[in-house]
Formats: sequence, C-alpha cells, structure tokens
Amino acid sequence: MPEMITSHANPQIKAIRKLSDRKERNSTGEYLAEGLRIVIEAIQLNQPIQKIIYSPDLLRSSIGWETIAGFEVKHPEKTLRVSEEVFKSITQKDNPQGAAAVISQRWVKLDEIKLTSRNLWVALHQVADPGNLGAVLRSMDGVDADGLILLDQCTDPYDPSSIRASMGAVLTRKLVKASSTEFITWVRQNRFTVVGTSDKAKLDFHTYTYPDPMVLLMGSERQGLDEKLQLICSKMVSIPMRGKNDSLNLAVATGIILYEIDRQKNTPGFER
Amino acid sequence: MPEMITSHANPQIKAIRKLSDRKERNSTGEYLAEGLRIVIEAIQLNQPIQKIIYSPDLLRSSIGWETIAGFEVKHPEKTLRVSEEVFKSITQKDNPQGAAAVISQRWVKLDEIKLTSRNLWVALHQVADPGNLGAVLRSMDGVDADGLILLDQCTDPYDPSSIRASMGAVLTRKLVKASSTEFITWVRQNRFTVVGTSDKAKLDFHTYTYPDPMVLLMGSERQGLDEKLQLICSKMVSIPMRGKNDSLNLAVATGIILYEIDRQKNTPGFER
Repeated sequence: MPEMITSHANPQIKAIRKLSDRKERNSTGEYLAEGLRIVIEAIQLNQPIQKIIYSPDLLRSSIGWETIAGFEVKHPEKTLRVSEEVFKSITQKDNPQGAAAVISQRWVKLDEIKLTSRNLWVALHQVADPGNLGAVLRSMDGVDADGLILLDQCTDPYDPSSIRASMGAVLTRKLVKASSTEFITWVRQNRFTVVGTSDKAKLDFHTYTYPDPMVLLMGSERQGLDEKLQLICSKMVSIPMRGKNDSLNLAVATGIILYEIDRQKNTPGFER
Repeated sequence: MPEMITSHANPQIKAIRKLSDRKERNSTGEYLAEGLRIVIEAIQLNQPIQKIIYSPDLLRSSIGWETIAGFEVKHPEKTLRVSEEVFKSITQKDNPQGAAAVISQRWVKLDEIKLTSRNLWVALHQVADPGNLGAVLRSMDGVDADGLILLDQCTDPYDPSSIRASMGAVLTRKLVKASSTEFITWVRQNRFTVVGTSDKAKLDFHTYTYPDPMVLLMGSERQGLDEKLQLICSKMVSIPMRGKNDSLNLAVATGIILYEIDRQKNTPGFER
C-alpha cells in the first residue's frame, strides 16, 4: 500500500491544483476530471490517464473501490492516495466523492476529419459559457453525434464546469479547435454540407430535411452566427420564437436541432 | 432633478442589496431585475415596479434614457438616481448597463388555473439549478407556453441567475408554487392531462401525439421523475439516448419536448 499524501504543499498536489487554470491546462495539455462516474468511465474507456487521485476516507462506492484498486495494481506509479483534507483542496465539488483523474487532453486536427455517411458534427463559434459547451457535448452524446469543432475564441471544453455539464461526454466526443478561416477552407475543399442557424432565417428547422453527413453550425450566445460563416452554409434554419424573445439558450437550441436531426435519421421511411 | 444617491450606506440601497438573498426576497415579496433590456420590458409590460434604480454615468442607450425618463416623470417617488459606485454595489454584472428595477413577485395560485384549449403548462419537480430554471422559462417563452408550476423544494425563479437565464421570460410566464400533494389533487379533481418524462419510459417522445391542453411534467436534475408523480401522468415519454449517458441537461430536455409539442401544434393537418 503506497503512502498517503497528507500535505497540501506536496508538489504533485500543487501541480494538480493548478489545472483549474486554463493557461496551465493549455501548457501541460492535461485536465482534471472529478467525480466517481467520470473517473470510472475514463478507466474503462482506456483514456490517457496520467494520475488517479483518491481519498480512502471519502470513497464510499464499492464499484469505485474496485475500479480504482484495479488501476492501482496495474499503474501504482500513476496512483495517488491522499487524505480527505488534501483531496478537498483539489476538488471544486461541495460533496466530493473522493476520486479524480488527471487526463491528457485529446484534440483531433481538422485535416484528419473526413465526414462519411451518417456522420454528424457540430461546430460552435465563440461559445463563451463552459456550462453551455458541456451541455452541448452531453446532447451530442444523446444523439451519438461524432464530434465538436470549436471555432476561434471559445471557452475550454476541459474547464471544470464544462466537464461537469458534459456528464463525461467530453471523454467520448471528438474535439477539434480551428479558426473560422481554416474551417471555411476545410468545408470548401471537401465540399462538406454545413447547416447554420439564425433567428432571421426563414426556414423552420422542423420543415427542413437534414443531409447526411453534415455539420451543424451554431453562433455564439451573444452574436448569433457570423456573416462570413453564414456564407458557407448550404442552408440556414431558424427555431420559431413565438413569445417575446428572439433566441433560446445556446445549449437548448443546439439540443433541439440535434434531436430533430435524430428524429429524421430514425424515422423509418423518412425521405432524405 | 432628484438628488443623486452616492452613499453605499443609504438605507434604500442597503435594502436593495439584500434582495440577492432568497430569504429577503421571500419576506419582502420583491426581487431585483438587472439590465437595460429587462427594465425596459418591465416598464413596457406595466409590471408592479417598486423602484427603478439608474446610474446616469453608466446608462448609455438612448432608448434606455427615454424609457426611464418617462417612468421618472410619472413616478418620481419610485425612481432612484445613483452614482456609478453605488450602482456597482447592487449589481452582479461585470459590465452593468446602469439600470435595475425592484419588482413585486407575481405568483398565481394553483386553484386559479384552469387549463383550456391549447394551454401548455410545464411543471418542474425540485429543480435545483437557477440557470436551468431560467433557461426553461426562456424556452417556454419560445413556444409561448402559459406558465410554470414549481413543485416542492425548487430553486427560486427570482434568483439573479434564473432571471438572467430567462432573458425576461420570468416577467411574462405565469408562476405557481405547489406541493406534490396539492398538484396531484388539482390534476385529479380537474382531470387535467399530464405527460411525464423518464429515461425508462418506452414511448419515444417524437412518436407520441401530445394532447391539448396539457401539463408537461419534468423530474429534477438528479432524481428523474418521482414515482408518486409518475402515477398521475397519462403518458410517460422518453428522449432516446444513443450514447453513453442516460439523460440530458434538464433545460435542454424540456426545450426539446416543448419544441416537439410546438411542431405538432403548428403542423397543418397533424392529427391530434
């Protein structure tokens, strides 16, 4: 049994704590995933785990114990046992479950993506809120969409709020970062079909037949979809707004359109 | 021109600042709405405004000036001019627009609600996150749903995060608070139709024809829909989950089902 880390000043613990900062995540290429569920999933999915951190005093679940013990046997050098106090110093949760993992970020390059039959990708332009970004990933898991392209200045999918909101989908969906310019070139060269959304579009998103494969392109929370990006869209659709507002929450809007695409994909005999 | 309040210790300012606390909102029956857009909307909609607070140094928009000046002429006793510093002490926004309003909460009693043709209500059981609650209200505005019933211990729709996420929909949607027991009695006595959601329901929400009028009942973020509440549902529907997770974000799930109901309502010839 390895020794238990009880000091907040332990250099490994200090390094882990720093991962709450985006700059540190960018420079190390790592992130901290907190909570039993995501840690178990990361182990089961063979994610590039650098460290598992657990606190025996906090860890109550038997499946949690089993999974982490299994990992510890194989990778003792990658496992840190820590005191309750030390664990609480690295977690952002109110009732921590005693398990966290430092995992390497996985980014796919835009050039590596080839859309083939039935592929569904989402692209977000300058999404600002990590909760929204995480909720989009969670909805993408719901319809089993392939991956997410983050255009220009977006919030970080590996932000703790995004990871939490994604309910683990950050582990399973492909992630790409690109500039608008790179994205436009990629779409044009490959002749991919992009469907955009705008509150000014005349086409009701329910009445459009979505192509296969496609990229669903959503604008930012504040600005809606950039004009330059609208130009590469094969079609612009809108969600009807029957009340006083002219838009929905970005994650809600993305979820609504993804599930309409899903309905069409899964309705036998739906004409596509 | 009234005098400008420059002291943080001004008793009116102190009372307004306290409204960030739920207890204070409950005991006064008031809340603070921040931001130009919602203040203008509150004035235009003749909401029960107790005070308008504005800072001439921060207020840049001409429509903002006009609307607030119009209000001030009619209700000088309800208008507070404050310094930039004092305004910043009451706001939770990073870039305050210099306008806020203290408004009386408006709650409708469950007994007062009679569902009639084409009415669409939403009931949430123990929703915990004010951002989710606000986003649900925003989606309800999107489909012009009538009102929201909050069951048992819910977060406060007048929480600043909820108001912000609702984009003003908190002003325009009817709000009801009730216990599960009261709700069940109300549904039974009036024979209202309630449609519930559960990840275990076999019926895909897309394949069900929604009745008119109806209440859409959603469970909490953590627990899903309570068994006792499931018993009064005419139908339970589920959203297909094709990935690793068994649920979506609550606001996203509610928005997806609301827009399916909306699609059916607005598809000519859709059989209902």
